[in-house]
Amino acid sequence: MKPPRLGIAIILSGPSGAGKSTVTNLLRQRNPDLCFSVSCTTREPRNGEVDGKDYYFIDKKDFQRNIRDNEFIEHAEVHGNFYGTLKSEIIERVRAGKDVILDIDVQGAFQIRKCSKQYSLLARCTELVFLGPPSFDELERRLRGRKTEKEDVIRKRLETAKLELDHWRDYDYLVINKEVEQTVKDMETLIDILHKSTKRLEDSGFYT
Amino acid sequence: MKPPRLGIAIILSGPSGAGKSTVTNLLRQRNPDLCFSVSCTTREPRNGEVDGKDYYFIDKKDFQRNIRDNEFIEHAEVHGNFYGTLKSEIIERVRAGKDVILDIDVQGAFQIRKCSKQYSLLARCTELVFLGPPSFDELERRLRGRKTEKEDVIRKRLETAKLELDHWRDYDYLVINKEVEQTVKDMETLIDILHKSTKRLEDSGFYT
Repeated sequence: MKPPRLGIAIILSGPSGAGKSTVTNLLRQRNPDLCFSVSCTTREPRNGEVDGKDYYFIDKKDFQRNIRDNEFIEHAEVHGNFYGTLKSEIIERVRAGKDVILDIDVQGAFQIRKCSKQYSLLARCTELVFLGPPSFDELERRLRGRKTEKEDVIRKRLETAKLELDHWRDYDYLVINKEVEQTVKDMETLIDILHKSTKRLEDSGFYT
Repeated sequence: MKPPRLGIAIILSGPSGAGKSTVTNLLRQRNPDLCFSVSCTTREPRNGEVDGKDYYFIDKKDFQRNIRDNEFIEHAEVHGNFYGTLKSEIIERVRAGKDVILDIDVQGAFQIRKCSKQYSLLARCTELVFLGPPSFDELERRLRGRKTEKEDVIRKRLETAKLELDHWRDYDYLVINKEVEQTVKDMETLIDILHKSTKRLEDSGFYT
């Protein structure tokens, strides 16, 4: 007997270079039932990124309209670009019992946390996971290893990361991304176990 | 880098016949580092039960003294016998980072939950797991299958169980004990994942 339950909105968040995108992509590949919340952004696509799959690449005008229409559950400016998550990407899916993963920066996670406090459905569904590097030095090595950004961008990211690393305390779980294969397994196990949490189970019909 | 953390006090609770003792015993056998909180009871030892290992078998006078001295984190009367958990069985161990498992009836778990709200160390450490049977009929089959209790005792237990089954909502996790091997694995995974919960991690020295 399996009780009806709400889906989980897994907020995978942490500083640039912690490995959010890599972990999210592997999780999606291996778990086709796991929905992905596609974020909106005004930044330029990186090599190989596909509109509607990796991001909705929209212009600043459309982004502002979404803010005005209260369509975002979170939105933020990071390094001069805008990022936002549409409510529609989460609500209907978790209501239907589907799990959704969100790859979100630290500012955005903070807004989702605030929003959850006002909206009980979100409070029941969201689980905030801080994906942290093994150390700050390792984070720096990874950011420099990408070789996709210029030195001033990297420095900006490192400054932000230093501040962001202190925020793991505000999340529900801390997952250290030391080795990506193990991290993906940890995330799969975490999601699996969170299905046993009572807060998403519905009362109706259980044991009666 | 591993941050210092508090241990977990896993409260394994649920109705008689759900399999609390079996699951607890297997978990202890397979995980020697997992501490066991030995309860006090005034009931007679069952076949093979050892004093100080399965329970502290004490008389009613000693039990009352412990209540008076505020030594219990929870205590209750079940079917005419007294059961209680000494605070000393939990606090020092979780402070030292050790995990403790407690096999507790539903009344007792309710008291621990209440006590946790007043005592922040306990709130950080306790995780309440409701061990449920697959169905009420299955619970009845198991209780009758034991053949250790008389019909009137079984009926009393079934009446209590019917009421207790509704309380899964008050726990953090619901684990359905369908097949004991799988349940023990689920519990091991649950404990493992709960180590990633930020609420037991200590601030000092992490990322700084």
